[in-house]
Amino acid sequence: MSATRNFDDKKPGKVIVYDFPRGPYPARVRIALLEKGLHDIPEYKFIDLYKGDHKTLEFKSTKNYSKTIPVFEFADGTLLSECVALTQYIDNIDGNPSLTGTSPLETGKIHMMTRRVEFEFLEAISLYFHNSTAGLGPTVETYQNHEWGLHQLERGINGMFFLDKILQKQPYIVGNQFSMADCAAIGGMIFLTFVNVQVPEDCKALKNWYKRLRERPSVKKYFEMVDNSNN
Amino acid sequence: MSATRNFDDKKPGKVIVYDFPRGPYPARVRIALLEKGLHDIPEYKFIDLYKGDHKTLEFKSTKNYSKTIPVFEFADGTLLSECVALTQYIDNIDGNPSLTGTSPLETGKIHMMTRRVEFEFLEAISLYFHNSTAGLGPTVETYQNHEWGLHQLERGINGMFFLDKILQKQPYIVGNQFSMADCAAIGGMIFLTFVNVQVPEDCKALKNWYKRLRERPSVKKYFEMVDNSNN
Repeated sequence: MSATRNFDDKKPGKVIVYDFPRGPYPARVRIALLEKGLHDIPEYKFIDLYKGDHKTLEFKSTKNYSKTIPVFEFADGTLLSECVALTQYIDNIDGNPSLTGTSPLETGKIHMMTRRVEFEFLEAISLYFHNSTAGLGPTVETYQNHEWGLHQLERGINGMFFLDKILQKQPYIVGNQFSMADCAAIGGMIFLTFVNVQVPEDCKALKNWYKRLRERPSVKKYFEMVDNSNN
Repeated sequence: MSATRNFDDKKPGKVIVYDFPRGPYPARVRIALLEKGLHDIPEYKFIDLYKGDHKTLEFKSTKNYSKTIPVFEFADGTLLSECVALTQYIDNIDGNPSLTGTSPLETGKIHMMTRRVEFEFLEAISLYFHNSTAGLGPTVETYQNHEWGLHQLERGINGMFFLDKILQKQPYIVGNQFSMADCAAIGGMIFLTFVNVQVPEDCKALKNWYKRLRERPSVKKYFEMVDNSNN
């Protein structure tokens, strides 16, 4: 894999990051940027999810068909989105991956566990939020399926027990190293605060993992940043 | 990224692949294995989705918590699953990636588009299949949300128009090269046959892309294999 030190991958110029800093998905990428010492490089443009800025026809047709954030926009107009893709990109540009593995098997495990964290926890809580609570409000949530959201909440709670079991045996979601999978799980923990759901009392390892990660410089910095921000 | 020529990543021994060859998700990984010349190396164990072999407590607790296939099992007991993780792994082990990009930006784009193909097409059709049709039958489909499935079918059909627009401009989902994103889209095309949904007449570029890919050696070989199999 060829690597460059330039955030904009050989194309000099500013990178714009469209995001909503407090959001669980933006958090994953902001923490990855902080881990890599790249957080201050891009310009951030605020997308107000509660106003549905990401659901406009313009955003869909010019930034991201899937209407999700964050989105990276490079100087030449290239667009990049999806947390896994962004994290993999961020982690590769310095030629020194620390979040996505350094051997084929390690990379495979990190991708597997990231997807598992998404499917069993983060996305489940997101689906509950958007379908079974007020979510982003009636103007933005144009379709809701209450029962599906409740079904997903159940999946998300089971997912916490699944992660707890893993974290009883090891300090991070994948073995002994902080990775993209932990970033995804932090996203899930943040999402819990949006829906007023608590980590089950019995999930002590999961609680301890999060407590420990909240003291990790990148994660601590992320929370300080959003706590001091108006957005 | 360190690379080895050994499928089992430095741990000699057999690899077992648990899958259901005709399935859209197994197809993604089988085609990736064929692309890399690795298809004949593992031993394949048939998981009968229609009998719910993947939903047993045993499969969940010993192979894959998410109850999906394919799953790779290495000689030392290491388990790997999730199509993206498996494809990324397969593509990295020979140190010569051809499906997941050779620069950070290319890799980012391929991961982005793979996820988009999943979210907007393959997973949408899968959710329709499992929720709004007989799916895998009443014993296996223990929870269905008919309306959610219909909502996803709509997403999946829109997704085909989205892919068609991309393929009007370029030969593959990501630029000029066959990639993991094309494997995911082939999975979606296969899933359409399970639900008797046609590619919309207007999606000529998508139809032509598939017609062309059906002649690609790896894809052709995959279909010959399942057509000649009892499973």
